[in-house]
Amino acid sequence: MFYHSGKLQYEVRVDNPDPVFAKYLQQAIGGVEGEIRVAMQYMFQAMGARGDSKYRDMLMMTATEELSHIEFLGHAVALNLQNAPLDAQEAAATDPVVGAIMGGMNPRHVLSSGLSAMPVNANGVPFDMSHVYATGNIGADMLANATAESGGRVLASRLYNMTDDKGMKDMLSFLIARDTMHQQQWLAVIEDLGGIEACMPVPNSTPESHEAMEHSYYFLNTSIDEETPQGVWTNGGKAMDGRGTYTAKDKAEPMGQVPDLGKARPKSGAQKEQM
Amino acid sequence: MFYHSGKLQYEVRVDNPDPVFAKYLQQAIGGVEGEIRVAMQYMFQAMGARGDSKYRDMLMMTATEELSHIEFLGHAVALNLQNAPLDAQEAAATDPVVGAIMGGMNPRHVLSSGLSAMPVNANGVPFDMSHVYATGNIGADMLANATAESGGRVLASRLYNMTDDKGMKDMLSFLIARDTMHQQQWLAVIEDLGGIEACMPVPNSTPESHEAMEHSYYFLNTSIDEETPQGVWTNGGKAMDGRGTYTAKDKAEPMGQVPDLGKARPKSGAQKEQM
Amino acid sequence: MFYHSGKLQYEVRVDNPDPVFAKYLQQAIGGVEGEIRVAMQYMFQAMGARGDSKYRDMLMMTATEELSHIEFLGHAVALNLQNAPLDAQEAAATDPVVGAIMGGMNPRHVLSSGLSAMPVNANGVPFDMSHVYATGNIGADMLANATAESGGRVLASRLYNMTDDKGMKDMLSFLIARDTMHQQQWLAVIEDLGGIEACMPVPNSTPESHEAMEHSYYFLNTSIDEETPQGVWTNGGKAMDGRGTYTAKDKAEPMGQVPDLGKARPKSGAQKEQM
Amino acid sequence: MFYHSGKLQYEVRVDNPDPVFAKYLQQAIGGVEGEIRVAMQYMFQAMGARGDSKYRDMLMMTATEELSHIEFLGHAVALNLQNAPLDAQEAAATDPVVGAIMGGMNPRHVLSSGLSAMPVNANGVPFDMSHVYATGNIGADMLANATAESGGRVLASRLYNMTDDKGMKDMLSFLIARDTMHQQQWLAVIEDLGGIEACMPVPNSTPESHEAMEHSYYFLNTSIDEETPQGVWTNGGKAMDGRGTYTAKDKAEPMGQVPDLGKARPKSGAQKEQM
Amino acid sequence: MFYHSGKLQYEVRVDNPDPVFAKYLQQAIGGVEGEIRVAMQYMFQAMGARGDSKYRDMLMMTATEELSHIEFLGHAVALNLQNAPLDAQEAAATDPVVGAIMGGMNPRHVLSSGLSAMPVNANGVPFDMSHVYATGNIGADMLANATAESGGRVLASRLYNMTDDKGMKDMLSFLIARDTMHQQQWLAVIEDLGGIEACMPVPNSTPESHEAMEHSYYFLNTSIDEETPQGVWTNGGKAMDGRGTYTAKDKAEPMGQVPDLGKARPKSGAQKEQM
Amino acid sequence: MFYHSGKLQYEVRVDNPDPVFAKYLQQAIGGVEGEIRVAMQYMFQAMGARGDSKYRDMLMMTATEELSHIEFLGHAVALNLQNAPLDAQEAAATDPVVGAIMGGMNPRHVLSSGLSAMPVNANGVPFDMSHVYATGNIGADMLANATAESGGRVLASRLYNMTDDKGMKDMLSFLIARDTMHQQQWLAVIEDLGGIEACMPVPNSTPESHEAMEHSYYFLNTSIDEETPQGVWTNGGKAMDGRGTYTAKDKAEPMGQVPDLGKARPKSGAQKEQM
Repeated sequence: MFYHSGKLQYEVRVDNPDPVFAKYLQQAIGGVEGEIRVAMQYMFQAMGARGDSKYRDMLMMTATEELSHIEFLGHAVALNLQNAPLDAQEAAATDPVVGAIMGGMNPRHVLSSGLSAMPVNANGVPFDMSHVYATGNIGADMLANATAESGGRVLASRLYNMTDDKGMKDMLSFLIARDTMHQQQWLAVIEDLGGIEACMPVPNSTPESHEAMEHSYYFLNTSIDEETPQGVWTNGGKAMDGRGTYTAKDKAEPMGQVPDLGKARPKSGAQKEQM
Repeated sequence: MFYHSGKLQYEVRVDNPDPVFAKYLQQAIGGVEGEIRVAMQYMFQAMGARGDSKYRDMLMMTATEELSHIEFLGHAVALNLQNAPLDAQEAAATDPVVGAIMGGMNPRHVLSSGLSAMPVNANGVPFDMSHVYATGNIGADMLANATAESGGRVLASRLYNMTDDKGMKDMLSFLIARDTMHQQQWLAVIEDLGGIEACMPVPNSTPESHEAMEHSYYFLNTSIDEETPQGVWTNGGKAMDGRGTYTAKDKAEPMGQVPDLGKARPKSGAQKEQM
Repeated sequence: MFYHSGKLQYEVRVDNPDPVFAKYLQQAIGGVEGEIRVAMQYMFQAMGARGDSKYRDMLMMTATEELSHIEFLGHAVALNLQNAPLDAQEAAATDPVVGAIMGGMNPRHVLSSGLSAMPVNANGVPFDMSHVYATGNIGADMLANATAESGGRVLASRLYNMTDDKGMKDMLSFLIARDTMHQQQWLAVIEDLGGIEACMPVPNSTPESHEAMEHSYYFLNTSIDEETPQGVWTNGGKAMDGRGTYTAKDKAEPMGQVPDLGKARPKSGAQKEQM
Repeated sequence: MFYHSGKLQYEVRVDNPDPVFAKYLQQAIGGVEGEIRVAMQYMFQAMGARGDSKYRDMLMMTATEELSHIEFLGHAVALNLQNAPLDAQEAAATDPVVGAIMGGMNPRHVLSSGLSAMPVNANGVPFDMSHVYATGNIGADMLANATAESGGRVLASRLYNMTDDKGMKDMLSFLIARDTMHQQQWLAVIEDLGGIEACMPVPNSTPESHEAMEHSYYFLNTSIDEETPQGVWTNGGKAMDGRGTYTAKDKAEPMGQVPDLGKARPKSGAQKEQM
Repeated sequence: MFYHSGKLQYEVRVDNPDPVFAKYLQQAIGGVEGEIRVAMQYMFQAMGARGDSKYRDMLMMTATEELSHIEFLGHAVALNLQNAPLDAQEAAATDPVVGAIMGGMNPRHVLSSGLSAMPVNANGVPFDMSHVYATGNIGADMLANATAESGGRVLASRLYNMTDDKGMKDMLSFLIARDTMHQQQWLAVIEDLGGIEACMPVPNSTPESHEAMEHSYYFLNTSIDEETPQGVWTNGGKAMDGRGTYTAKDKAEPMGQVPDLGKARPKSGAQKEQM
Repeated sequence: MFYHSGKLQYEVRVDNPDPVFAKYLQQAIGGVEGEIRVAMQYMFQAMGARGDSKYRDMLMMTATEELSHIEFLGHAVALNLQNAPLDAQEAAATDPVVGAIMGGMNPRHVLSSGLSAMPVNANGVPFDMSHVYATGNIGADMLANATAESGGRVLASRLYNMTDDKGMKDMLSFLIARDTMHQQQWLAVIEDLGGIEACMPVPNSTPESHEAMEHSYYFLNTSIDEETPQGVWTNGGKAMDGRGTYTAKDKAEPMGQVPDLGKARPKSGAQKEQM
């Protein structure tokens, strides 16, 4: 069950409201790299967690933290919109800076939300929940979470560069820090479960008899004119899962048939010539 | 530039066509765990790759392999649909097995595609390209790729269990194997770049001055009645990035203000009572 | 800032796990009538609330409650899936009841989530955040909220009928009750602001000079062969906003021109014949 | 059955074509507050209307009017685009006003529609029909309709402010007026059905035995540090549905269990450590 | 401006209500092959039509007809749902036919619409307006319209096969007929404009100097192991646009460079190793 | 099976990088008129092709070519982004040209992709696979393909006009040329199958007994005040399918009943007043 405090998790200060930066910040709320995504992803993973309950607890606790991030980012968006132009006189100023604002801000911040945050990304595309990755497999989920936090920290770092506002830089430095921890805590779960070798391949419960293992350890070069790129994945060393050795197949060959579906059946809605 | 062979990468054989299993297989084509996603993800990452070109080459070669997976899976779907009911007599049989088929198959496999594969998932929801994660950061991208392949191998393992068809099991055992390699090859890139410690936190190019590092290494317990879950992430050991030490904050406290946007501005479309 | 308790807001008990009902319940999580929608809608309205802060507080408190509803519904879905078929033998039983289950359950509950809840509706369509209505106008928002809760209570009532499980009926009776209160509390805000007449038309801050008021109070009959339906809206009584009198225009007439865009411009990508 | 007149419902005049305002107007066509939404919503409600047929007639007549609104708004968009830049010379003018236009207009108005309206919102996101709310319950539907018209009038009022064009202001004053009527006519249906008390809670056909009525009349304070906001909803007065009395629960407590799904089943695609 | 008659364009009769067929029929309402799509496509094309106004009139008249098709199909869906199971007793019958119904019908026809049509396809996916193709080019638009009507007639033909209900077959035979005319009337516009040769390539207003015409008339064989398929497109005859001669390039060769983006820029959020 | 060359199909050169044009180019990658769409459309049509295998081969060969188009367009987008502003100083220049760039470029080209192409359109909306039209009917598919290529050539022509960059104009002239061929090759398949008359109406396998042929050859005038537009479609000539004669019905009349669904059923979640 959830509870709420009337205060924000972190102080939000905007020294120079900037409606264009408000649009940029939306990516951190409603983008695939944003906070709605991680809040919901961790919450759904927690609701489906089976096995040791400590992982479920971690997930729900961090989901709760991410909800707080949505909240203070939403406040930051609204503060950046406080002085945005609301009528044609304000908007049509010949001042090029205003011109750029009108071109650069999200018009729905005026038209639809009345100067407030929306659950959309920097292009105004609403977040959709297909990005909530929760597989029921803790290995796949932890990688998905580290991925999400990496995308989040890349985004926060870029936003940090794109503003000169001291308040915004301070808030973003907090987000960058929390994304650092979150990246590492999800990978730490893999450590906790025995490390990469023990966890891989994901799922590690698939019987080897279900796997055509002669195809499990070669890098496939599908190019007709490029050399196989060399690296850990081709160096003959032990694969990460400890079950095989990395090699390469330098020339890919078809192993299958020419596909042929024959003629179309009557009543299938095809043209007569296909039957 | 792309080329094509008339033969499939892997042999596809369906001993007992099953239109319900055709619906299930769609998840491996047009689901977020599916082959369109990885083909496009690796292709877009390759097109945006900066730095050592060998990673770009790897990405494009494996993108090319994934296109071949779409192709043979599409053939598998069509073969499973070969005998699906096309008229009311066939469909309305009182035989409960047929009843289940009519309830369980995707009706658009008759109505829209004429007994062929579609770029949709097992619920008939079309794949959308927002799932193509390509950040321009090779660390974030490699984690995203290992994630995608983990989800893919989880899915292929579940599909393997859900069929009794020998041909389908054979094809899926090949997919399981390739997903094994792909998981490991993407993590191997991180090894190649110096390993987890060197690569983290992602992005590793963010200056420490942009990060409120006093918040970078504690797990935040946001629960009002649960103990902090203990593990690698709280054990006082060195964090994965080598820059800090894992701790926990057992009781989360707000650090920010009560948010207050004041009154609504005239012309903002609010109610008078808000102004 | 958000907090969490380890316990659910309401007890969840499933006496007879039913994977088909799990699919149905998804509508209450990820449907437009569902809990993700209201949780996010109230949260975004709260983040954009201007004017008296008590309404912001109400919104955030109820948003928090709705998050708890997502959580116990998610648990209910997982409990209904506990025994769902995971392999072909279990699934292919000729028992018609199992046949109906295989046809009727959401296959992604096996393939994608591993027997857990997903943020999708009963058709497996992911929730998207365009349904978060938050206009910055408290009148429009309160109507939107009463609407959402009405849709929610309609749904919960239908779900109640569609199950025989005592535990599920108990949980749904709680949801029905909370939706009762939530409907009324949002309309109570309108009372608190002076009632319908004071609040209408929404927005009540639009100057009358911006409105062609000669068109503000007639019902327009656009039918060529039906009588004007008679009722409060045509009875000559005072309109709800107190500014006019309800009438009807029994025969709609065009007031505008025949639209004509002339010829296409060169370089506009049209056919030559259009230029 | 539908018919059409060659003339527009209302005169459309654009004195100073403005491609940026064309983008803004799109919100009134393809936004969630727009005319496609209400036209389709009323039409689908009409097609599913059961009970007294006069409500079905109202719905279809107003659906028909909204189709006419799409039409004249589409003409307004095209007229605003008449002089938009079609080549690099026109677009690259160093005149900052042109710069703002190129930044601010929707590029697809050139690239995709050839200077015509599109069924998208002001961000270029296509309208999707999940926003057509039609529940089969006339109470829920009427609230949804009043909500839609409130959002519509908020939007039209904001658009009115954002233009200086006399023709556009005239057209928008007509939309504002019609939205006034439509708000009130849908609420008038509730009056016609006996008023709010008779209609609530929606659905009013749910038996009281299906409702845990001890939870139906309290406002739940889920905050850990904020007072319960006081108002109509907590004042001990009769609830709107006449069945109970408004109270508050000032401190929310979990009533449910700690959720626990136990171990993962074999063949569920989980990690071994979860089993 | 639009008008409406209280009667349907065509008689709708359902002899044996079938909720599974109701789901199938949804494809003809809210599928990409359905009536919402063509109604909106023709309406938006009409609103953007430049050049001879007779084409605009055709488009709007047929748009109007398609709205009438939505209406009677919506009635057909509702009639098929009249007896659908509304509670667990009705639904849980061990009768395999009922089992198949419960598995095969769209649960949202009970849960969300209350036994009425929805603007979704046969998988329950809402229609989205990105499928409204209106380019401002009459040639492209007419091909798009003939395409839409072909898809529509394929669908109607398949639906005709999938039902035994005499009333439904009668209604579908009318749709099949109208789709016949609509296919031909849109292609007739191309005849009216001078025929295929005059209209092609679309747009026919692109100057030849904007086209690398040495690449305009060869079929490109991109296969590494298949012969060039022979036909009209390779036979050396005059191309349809009358400007060239069909040939084939039997072996595709890259004409471009190896793509290379160099190093990542500082502040771009990449890993250090990419810089 | 697919293969890849390290070189691009066509040389890409950008003389003056322009991040606004990068946004425009996205329409050719991820728009409905773009290359992802045709690549996937032809690939899925090929995978479902029944009948003469030469059409399947054509489809797969051209699908392969379109994949190469995605690749070089993606490179063009990245080259146009090479110098885009990455921090607030670069972005906030008072130079109006930079102002327009910041307003006009896609912010996600900085925030999400790190100066690389994305699978989105010019508004940043991700491509979704519902636009892959593959019906199993070769007639419908060929029309869909000619439509897609017409939309593509319209777009490429508009992009050609919107840039002054010689390299970009050269690349676009190649795309214009290939779209010329692709339009004609798909229509050539219809020639190959006997021509329009033989192929129509699509599907040509629908028995005439399934069609209410008395409704198959009249243009329906649904206007109340416009004359029937005259042309090939009304001139009494032979219809394109050779089965009938074009006529017009100058005054549309309803042929159906007044729709009436009666009362709502108990347990349907309606209001009591509807029952």
